[in-house]
Amino acid sequence: MATLKPTVGFIGLGVMGNSMASHILDAGYSLFVYTRTKKKAEALVQKGATWVSSPKEIALYAEIVITIVGYPKDVEEVYLGSEGLITNGKPGSYFIDMTTSSPSLAKKLFAEGNKKGIHVLDAPVSGGDIGAKEARLAIMVGGNEADYEAVLPIFQLMGKNIAYLGEAGNGQHTKMANQIAIASNMIGVCEALVYAKHAGLDVEKVLATISTGAAGSFSLSNLAPRIVNGDYSPGFFIKHFIKDMVIALSEAEKMGIETPGLSLALTMYKKLAAMGEENSGTQALYKYWQ
Amino acid sequence: MATLKPTVGFIGLGVMGNSMASHILDAGYSLFVYTRTKKKAEALVQKGATWVSSPKEIALYAEIVITIVGYPKDVEEVYLGSEGLITNGKPGSYFIDMTTSSPSLAKKLFAEGNKKGIHVLDAPVSGGDIGAKEARLAIMVGGNEADYEAVLPIFQLMGKNIAYLGEAGNGQHTKMANQIAIASNMIGVCEALVYAKHAGLDVEKVLATISTGAAGSFSLSNLAPRIVNGDYSPGFFIKHFIKDMVIALSEAEKMGIETPGLSLALTMYKKLAAMGEENSGTQALYKYWQ
Repeated sequence: MATLKPTVGFIGLGVMGNSMASHILDAGYSLFVYTRTKKKAEALVQKGATWVSSPKEIALYAEIVITIVGYPKDVEEVYLGSEGLITNGKPGSYFIDMTTSSPSLAKKLFAEGNKKGIHVLDAPVSGGDIGAKEARLAIMVGGNEADYEAVLPIFQLMGKNIAYLGEAGNGQHTKMANQIAIASNMIGVCEALVYAKHAGLDVEKVLATISTGAAGSFSLSNLAPRIVNGDYSPGFFIKHFIKDMVIALSEAEKMGIETPGLSLALTMYKKLAAMGEENSGTQALYKYWQ
Repeated sequence: MATLKPTVGFIGLGVMGNSMASHILDAGYSLFVYTRTKKKAEALVQKGATWVSSPKEIALYAEIVITIVGYPKDVEEVYLGSEGLITNGKPGSYFIDMTTSSPSLAKKLFAEGNKKGIHVLDAPVSGGDIGAKEARLAIMVGGNEADYEAVLPIFQLMGKNIAYLGEAGNGQHTKMANQIAIASNMIGVCEALVYAKHAGLDVEKVLATISTGAAGSFSLSNLAPRIVNGDYSPGFFIKHFIKDMVIALSEAEKMGIETPGLSLALTMYKKLAAMGEENSGTQALYKYWQ
């Protein structure tokens, strides 16, 4: 079909963002990009993206804008700062935050956008740098369903398991549930390895034996072997996991629910960060015992 | 082949034991059985097993004896009591404890057996009542490798994933590592569900979204849906899980390793047992939040 494609903007060109933006460009969309460190945009600009110098400009030129930045404070600045997207946005625009960020902030951005006739979605992802590169991210979307459907073709350029979870904030809440499940499991995986090692077992044999049964998990199959090999390189940074757990804990507290496993995991990971491991992968929790 | 099959004894005819003994009988072995509650042996006796009234008699009649009883104190009684297997055993016998029990006790039984020329193996299983019924248990074996190989044909009647893990106690240690990994993960699975529910999410949709990614686990795929359906029936009893965690914690303390996740899980499950949930399935941890 020769329908005119909407112009897309992309803010935040880290490892994830670069791959994601690249898929959009490859699909033939006009792409405007902005990121704090201009150098990170070079490869995309060479492929045909247009660099601009602020979120404000993106808001002026693009009809659909995707953001994937660092922390909730960065999201807030990108959307609500004086040079921000919503502050300067046109009615009818679609703004999609794919940062893992606070559900409460997602609701606020939705409400602020709504006042100006701007469609805001929260759509955090799971799947890491490899998922981003291979365009098979899981994407968890909150906001209006009609808005979700309108931009679904864009999501489909980046992910496979794309789910609409309901009202604004529900994408972030779903991601938080995901991180909560991972947090305690990482403790169990590391403890099992520490126990097996101290018991004098052949740890690789133990993993082969227990990974396929009731103790089985993604982390046991994918991260435990890295630990056994002494590989603590980041698939997912400890500092980002801490950010997510802080958000999840804050939301859980607002709901009045106890999360003893999450609290324990956060305490342990903060200790690791203090030991200088914040840029290691989450499997470096194993070093808690060293 | 028309080789003479060894006579087998089986002690402990709970749901697991009954299925396991039945497979041995079906394979054409002569089977002597003993269990504290005679009624539990009825079906096997009707199929051709011979009931005897003590472990001592089993030790006299059988060349290979399998035990799968309740608690370490039961194991100790069955092996070392005045009517026990080792107390009354013949040199050259093979005694295999498939109870999930203490690694320290397994080492003790091995040593005591060794004094009398009796081959003792520890071989706890994983896979539950369905695994036992379908003869696809995981079996984790510790003891002498030659002894393991001698009785492997018997293990193959009951399981699929059968592993020799090294010296006496290592089967139990591997099972402990398995339970340690499960313990913390159960907290994470339940917390994620509690969070999702309180956040007002469609919990089934959340599970479908997060089960296939980095948060994925056997428990998330198999036990979380039961929780969503309010099904707390036992695949694995809380009281047995508590027994296992108490053993694991005791062994970890002997090794001088900290197990904060295991300790937390044990505290939470003990609270549930005190609430009257000891005969519920482990997924009833969810009720901790009710």
